[in-house]
Amino acid sequence: MIKVGIVGGTGYTGAELLRLLALHPEVELVAITSRAEAGKRVTEIFPNLRGMVDLVFTPPEESILRRCDVIFFATPNGTAMGMVPGLLEAGVRVIDLAADFRLKDAAEWEQWYGMPHACPELLSEAVYGLPETNREAIREARLVACPGCYPTAVQLGFLPLLEAGVVKPGSLIADAKSGVSGAGRKASVGTLLAECSESMKAYAVSGHRHLPEIRQGLQAATGTEVGLVFVPHLTPMIRGIHATLYATLTRETADLQALFEQRFAAEPFVDVLPFGSHPETRSVKGANVCRIALHRPQGGGTVVVLSVIDNLVKGAAGQAVQNMNLMFGLRESAGLEAIALLP
Amino acid sequence: MIKVGIVGGTGYTGAELLRLLALHPEVELVAITSRAEAGKRVTEIFPNLRGMVDLVFTPPEESILRRCDVIFFATPNGTAMGMVPGLLEAGVRVIDLAADFRLKDAAEWEQWYGMPHACPELLSEAVYGLPETNREAIREARLVACPGCYPTAVQLGFLPLLEAGVVKPGSLIADAKSGVSGAGRKASVGTLLAECSESMKAYAVSGHRHLPEIRQGLQAATGTEVGLVFVPHLTPMIRGIHATLYATLTRETADLQALFEQRFAAEPFVDVLPFGSHPETRSVKGANVCRIALHRPQGGGTVVVLSVIDNLVKGAAGQAVQNMNLMFGLRESAGLEAIALLP
Amino acid sequence: MIKVGIVGGTGYTGAELLRLLALHPEVELVAITSRAEAGKRVTEIFPNLRGMVDLVFTPPEESILRRCDVIFFATPNGTAMGMVPGLLEAGVRVIDLAADFRLKDAAEWEQWYGMPHACPELLSEAVYGLPETNREAIREARLVACPGCYPTAVQLGFLPLLEAGVVKPGSLIADAKSGVSGAGRKASVGTLLAECSESMKAYAVSGHRHLPEIRQGLQAATGTEVGLVFVPHLTPMIRGIHATLYATLTRETADLQALFEQRFAAEPFVDVLPFGSHPETRSVKGANVCRIALHRPQGGGTVVVLSVIDNLVKGAAGQAVQNMNLMFGLRESAGLEAIALLP
Amino acid sequence: MIKVGIVGGTGYTGAELLRLLALHPEVELVAITSRAEAGKRVTEIFPNLRGMVDLVFTPPEESILRRCDVIFFATPNGTAMGMVPGLLEAGVRVIDLAADFRLKDAAEWEQWYGMPHACPELLSEAVYGLPETNREAIREARLVACPGCYPTAVQLGFLPLLEAGVVKPGSLIADAKSGVSGAGRKASVGTLLAECSESMKAYAVSGHRHLPEIRQGLQAATGTEVGLVFVPHLTPMIRGIHATLYATLTRETADLQALFEQRFAAEPFVDVLPFGSHPETRSVKGANVCRIALHRPQGGGTVVVLSVIDNLVKGAAGQAVQNMNLMFGLRESAGLEAIALLP
Repeated sequence: MIKVGIVGGTGYTGAELLRLLALHPEVELVAITSRAEAGKRVTEIFPNLRGMVDLVFTPPEESILRRCDVIFFATPNGTAMGMVPGLLEAGVRVIDLAADFRLKDAAEWEQWYGMPHACPELLSEAVYGLPETNREAIREARLVACPGCYPTAVQLGFLPLLEAGVVKPGSLIADAKSGVSGAGRKASVGTLLAECSESMKAYAVSGHRHLPEIRQGLQAATGTEVGLVFVPHLTPMIRGIHATLYATLTRETADLQALFEQRFAAEPFVDVLPFGSHPETRSVKGANVCRIALHRPQGGGTVVVLSVIDNLVKGAAGQAVQNMNLMFGLRESAGLEAIALLP
Repeated sequence: MIKVGIVGGTGYTGAELLRLLALHPEVELVAITSRAEAGKRVTEIFPNLRGMVDLVFTPPEESILRRCDVIFFATPNGTAMGMVPGLLEAGVRVIDLAADFRLKDAAEWEQWYGMPHACPELLSEAVYGLPETNREAIREARLVACPGCYPTAVQLGFLPLLEAGVVKPGSLIADAKSGVSGAGRKASVGTLLAECSESMKAYAVSGHRHLPEIRQGLQAATGTEVGLVFVPHLTPMIRGIHATLYATLTRETADLQALFEQRFAAEPFVDVLPFGSHPETRSVKGANVCRIALHRPQGGGTVVVLSVIDNLVKGAAGQAVQNMNLMFGLRESAGLEAIALLP
Repeated sequence: MIKVGIVGGTGYTGAELLRLLALHPEVELVAITSRAEAGKRVTEIFPNLRGMVDLVFTPPEESILRRCDVIFFATPNGTAMGMVPGLLEAGVRVIDLAADFRLKDAAEWEQWYGMPHACPELLSEAVYGLPETNREAIREARLVACPGCYPTAVQLGFLPLLEAGVVKPGSLIADAKSGVSGAGRKASVGTLLAECSESMKAYAVSGHRHLPEIRQGLQAATGTEVGLVFVPHLTPMIRGIHATLYATLTRETADLQALFEQRFAAEPFVDVLPFGSHPETRSVKGANVCRIALHRPQGGGTVVVLSVIDNLVKGAAGQAVQNMNLMFGLRESAGLEAIALLP
Repeated sequence: MIKVGIVGGTGYTGAELLRLLALHPEVELVAITSRAEAGKRVTEIFPNLRGMVDLVFTPPEESILRRCDVIFFATPNGTAMGMVPGLLEAGVRVIDLAADFRLKDAAEWEQWYGMPHACPELLSEAVYGLPETNREAIREARLVACPGCYPTAVQLGFLPLLEAGVVKPGSLIADAKSGVSGAGRKASVGTLLAECSESMKAYAVSGHRHLPEIRQGLQAATGTEVGLVFVPHLTPMIRGIHATLYATLTRETADLQALFEQRFAAEPFVDVLPFGSHPETRSVKGANVCRIALHRPQGGGTVVVLSVIDNLVKGAAGQAVQNMNLMFGLRESAGLEAIALLP
């Protein structure tokens, strides 16, 4: 059994990690930390776990965490980087669900996240935890930076096109719609039901932190500069991301559908729907899967890719568990077989 | 492996049966029928099952169904009763999720359901599939009538009080709130999102079909006449029932909380919360559990019981699988361990 | 034109007052205060008012407020009582939408609201602003205490029964369901969309602050002690209260329906539906009306009253404007003719 | 008073017309027709109108309709064209909220709507009822074709850019998100709350009927061919359209914001927000206004326009009333002053 600790367990990604790990056949949950809730039962905050998780929140003390084989950080940005060097030194492997190790360029990170980076020397070692591009590196990694939710949906939709060179890399538009859980479990006026239910809005159009992350990932795939306009929207639902992706075709491609099907043929958690389908976010609610469909409206020069994930699963906690499975040589889908809840 | 067939698989209880049975370790899904969708892949209607269920809808032909060990009926009321006698005769066991075999009195059934009963002689044999009251009978049953969703939440909340004789049996009020999936997956104006979102209403206050079913169950527990006012409400959410139950205490009871905890101590799927708690329906979303909490407002003579279930799981498909597990001597919780999706 | 000021304009009742008063034919909006947002345009917070309201938030200075004919307090409980004596002395009339002046008994107020009352001597003068019971007193009032949202829906539903003496006053149950806007526009985890959407729960079952207010109002109507169990629920919608009321009939009443129709015949904002109807909260969304329907399930001894309002309109800002109209001799429905938004 | 009739009053645009016209100071509602509901009170279907509208549905008989000054058609596509010639001949003016007269090219209409056009000779006379482009023609029109909901939001967002020639006409992308009321008030599985709540999906990506309508409108503005990719999405809310529009700038434009502000300076129902704003659909809920904001992400070559409307008001019934006001020489905003309901 793999000894697992979770730092920062009171948010939605922490809750989702608990939901997945509690039923994982190879995992022993050893510790979950929260400064604010130390001493409280996990089930007082997450009653869905009653009878399934018996843990009590503890302060994030390194002495406890060092006893684990792997630590998941489900903390706000900027927390993990303060603790990771010590843990790695102690031989504990780390999966960070926050953004601390996602960007390779420390200066760019500091610009987007507005703080100095505590251990920029680890940025090059950290493996970007998108198994569909980095599976082998993840297996060996000491430190995995789990992708953001938008970057997961957007990259999986664009990658086959860019890798095959069938679209102009400077022409990308990602119009993404996210459920409100993406904003996290923290008191705020903007995400009250009375504020954001029965409404739709874009936000951060001038620049969202996931933009450099997506760009970095896509550029790694193509080796050339990528031009991307990324517009996220807040959608009145709890879970789900629907990314609608637009790119300009460079040539009359033989078969876009075959391109995607071949690219993801061996992927356990990417599902390419028949050409012309309309995936719904509810078809992945609670499940670690990205469903993708392709369109070429009016047979024109623009390819439209529809890519849906559950932001808390394939976009966060599920992908983190998928990474853990790879890192510890387990079946990649262990603990991740759950079927989306529909309706 | 138990060979399972589902008749009427295009509704929500059918979809939920598929979701649960696809991951059940002891089940082989053999057939799923639908006249309207015969020939279509199950996953065309329920895309969440892609990669997990490979079945194609077939017409409900008895020759196929007879090959099964057990048939679940997830059909509209009045369908199962036409096919059950033949199946039983062929040695197939039956679990009916509809109302055909829930009432013992054929005349009462015909009055509430507005049609003649096709096999009233089976009503006495049919076992009412509430494991918390009928576990031993269910084990031996050829034919199980799965309780309705409201009756499950309401009976589990009232039973300990009535069995212990601590409330007046003529004083019961059940104010129940249900998500819209309870109305089924059929085209209708009243349950359009644009009609029932952002709104709340009571319905069928003059008399709902679950009233005689609840009354029958509670009377069986007490042996005396029960007086019940039952008011169901349509709530703007997909899943969940919240039953708020009121009863007049007959005496200064020593310990209501202990009464409930003892009554359900051995029950795998009833969770009694600490006294004074407020269970949320989301704490059972997708899970086969009933969570119950007790209140005695202002220390007065009225006990208030809050009882929540997922109407499609403990209120339908989950309970049906629980019954199957009992009927076939499996672990009662096989295939039912999933944790509620929160948030 | 009546000069109007609003103290505490950044919450939902403040926003709703602005929406109603901006189109009121006899009102000049003079000032709106907010310590936190002083200097900011109202429309930065409430973009629906763009082009309609040109005010800037100011600090709550008495010098400005004294220039008004009437001040609405849309503040948290405990704020108005500090400013009201000075305003009354200056000849300004006051309508308080918070709870400061709702209870007649200072000791009871202090017990439920957990603070000393700043001006208990005004409690007897304050007129409880339910026009359906206190219309004449409201006309003459210097200080009106606007009823709470639950108390409005519950009292209007019970009053005809109690006034006519046809139900046992000790047998009342009010099972009330409220939209989330009732919790106000303040940062909080519990009312995030991701927390309270797709879920239903009761809260404050042991005792809600509206309980003594309802009891006081109903006792004033009957002259005798009233026994009430009041269970509020949080419902996943923005606006609306649905109160489901239960009472035990004392005698075979001739005609409950006629009783209600006569009681409210002259009321501009109470609508009695045909017997056996099921009012929906959406039928009053945005409108200053309470719709009521009666049921007597199974012809039994319990009368069920269904009473719906928009908690922000007839349950708060609309009723406040109705009070203002009465106080200033205007047409009672001035500025309140809007039709509910459906769908 | 203008005598008004509504044909097809049981859908959402009919209901919204009633809500607006019932309070319109210059309108007398004379008739509302529905074959299916003939004889029923309007308020039985739309209880929000109780006390405000006293009409009974009648069959759509021309003898009654000819008594009106103007008829609104709130019917399914293909109904109005059968009745309009007779009405025009009788001197009745017509405002069609359906699509029958929106396209100028009968062949194109027949291709997209799948039926022969009953009176193609009227297509050239019909005035496209977008006051922001056709105000003067509308004043004189006998027959106005009200724009579709998407076309209203999309055209208002693109027009200033195309008219000024600052974007490539072949580069347009419209990613539009609509609430579910856009699908109408008809029984259907796909728009049940249990199907489309808590989910997001694109639909009709291969070609939506509003595509030719938008293209025609934009081409009229530019005089050149327009290349448009239009992807509509179903969003889990009742009302609202959020159009996110992308276009490639042809040159370093001096001031996009000034361009929009000048274009709409005299428009009563188009509100240009400060540059970089994020309009929310709730800011127009129930109001006849389009709010628009501009972005230029990362200072790049793509302009992003965010355009929001209430699909039932500025996208249908409100715009229809605006057209009527113009046709009859009334104040353009008569009956349309209502402020959006927020929250």
